[in-house]
Amino acid sequence: METKENISALQEFNHQTIPTKSVSVNGIDFTYRSFGKKEGIPVIFLQHFTGNMDNWDPEVTNAIAAQHPVVLFNNKGVGSSKGITPDNVPAMAQDAVDFIHALGYDKVNLLGFSLGGFIAQHIAAHQPELVHKLILAGTGSIGGKAIAQLESHLEKAFVDGPDRVLINLFFSKTPSSIKAGEAFLGRLAERQHDRDLPSSQETIGNQARAIIQYGLETDKDSKQLRSINQPALIVNGSEDVMVDSINSYIMLQNIPNAKLVLWSDSGHGALFQYGADFANEVNNFLLN
Amino acid sequence: METKENISALQEFNHQTIPTKSVSVNGIDFTYRSFGKKEGIPVIFLQHFTGNMDNWDPEVTNAIAAQHPVVLFNNKGVGSSKGITPDNVPAMAQDAVDFIHALGYDKVNLLGFSLGGFIAQHIAAHQPELVHKLILAGTGSIGGKAIAQLESHLEKAFVDGPDRVLINLFFSKTPSSIKAGEAFLGRLAERQHDRDLPSSQETIGNQARAIIQYGLETDKDSKQLRSINQPALIVNGSEDVMVDSINSYIMLQNIPNAKLVLWSDSGHGALFQYGADFANEVNNFLLN
Repeated sequence: METKENISALQEFNHQTIPTKSVSVNGIDFTYRSFGKKEGIPVIFLQHFTGNMDNWDPEVTNAIAAQHPVVLFNNKGVGSSKGITPDNVPAMAQDAVDFIHALGYDKVNLLGFSLGGFIAQHIAAHQPELVHKLILAGTGSIGGKAIAQLESHLEKAFVDGPDRVLINLFFSKTPSSIKAGEAFLGRLAERQHDRDLPSSQETIGNQARAIIQYGLETDKDSKQLRSINQPALIVNGSEDVMVDSINSYIMLQNIPNAKLVLWSDSGHGALFQYGADFANEVNNFLLN
Repeated sequence: METKENISALQEFNHQTIPTKSVSVNGIDFTYRSFGKKEGIPVIFLQHFTGNMDNWDPEVTNAIAAQHPVVLFNNKGVGSSKGITPDNVPAMAQDAVDFIHALGYDKVNLLGFSLGGFIAQHIAAHQPELVHKLILAGTGSIGGKAIAQLESHLEKAFVDGPDRVLINLFFSKTPSSIKAGEAFLGRLAERQHDRDLPSSQETIGNQARAIIQYGLETDKDSKQLRSINQPALIVNGSEDVMVDSINSYIMLQNIPNAKLVLWSDSGHGALFQYGADFANEVNNFLLN
């Protein structure tokens, strides 16, 4: 639980310097980092497959934190959080809700990237009273195009060795996008102390099962998307190889109150390639 | 040709009050309205099928004019401009280029809506030295989906009588979008003096032929889109019944340096339904 004293200290810190804390969620310790503006509805960041808190881009988190409270966290079993990661999106969504309640919040903005976007949609649809606004990056809806082909996407991304996986998955094959990818990796390394732990193979396996199951399910008549009543900002790159970009277009056409932003020459990680513009879109979206 | 004296007076006027002027383009008088910021690269507005200068939304034009010089005009044969409107997009594009040169500009931003967007793409691809940045609203590329079905789109729009045509064509069937359409019509009436003339049936017929021909053509491998080197901002509604929204997605995937913005619960006239956000996107896009 945040206390008045530690909240008042948040603004002295940023993504690179904020100490990691933990909170007990149903008896299990979840790790998180909370920084940025002291007042306002917080933006809870929901992370992608395999990612931990260190996988968020400080260019993005700090720019959003300049105008809002920001909370990065590891869901159950992820990174330095304890417990066992469940193998399905609804259970992950409930863990995230329990974490949010454990911090004492009853209204939050959700920013979900990829798997985090699946979780964000589930929470918005099933626990709408908790969600003020929704930001969906590089993601898609239940049964979305090519989501279930996760193993094939990963196989292609590994052909250049483990060091290039993130660039292959998140950026396009153009020199400009690859250069942006390398700059992104540089920014991820800017936090030098108190870094997070990698997720276990068990966690990654359960996340993969959750993603594939989500991709194999069907949501007749886009019922879940149509039930999302919160304003939604949807963003992606023009050629996402993880969650096909057309899924963003489909979400725009079915979520009743939504805005879609797509950038050319970019993929799954467009929110980082165009970090300044993305943060600007988010801040404008949360302003109104 | 703008003189220093009349340019310095522009900022005293806005969309509702700026007097209409005319300029001779290859011996033919074109009407135009020039207002807004005195310095900077102007934004030239390229109008839709049947529209004249009074069909631009003052909420949008004034917000862009606060940061840029703005030029509304009637292309050859349109509204109060003299001459005969050609029946094809390349000739319309050449007329627009000749008009821009007649005003003395050698570098402009183009904001093209629908048919105006076809013209803007043509100019950007074929006379790139003239175009700084490109804004494409409610439009599509050569051979784009359902563009050639113009007569069918119009027939459906006329079922509620002539007063509702613009709302049927530009807005969605939801109460919120229809209400936005009625507010838009109210804003179009705000300019009370020195209003434009309607286009002749000959002009409208030639514009229709140009649109249908553009929709029937093919552009193998999206060659024209891929040749557009200027930064492009593409916008539309989620369910455009004039120029199917998927055309905006296709432009984003093929123009090398582009950003797409789509809004839900809206159609062809999304740039007016979300006028404040559209103008904000345009101003941010032109800033960088």
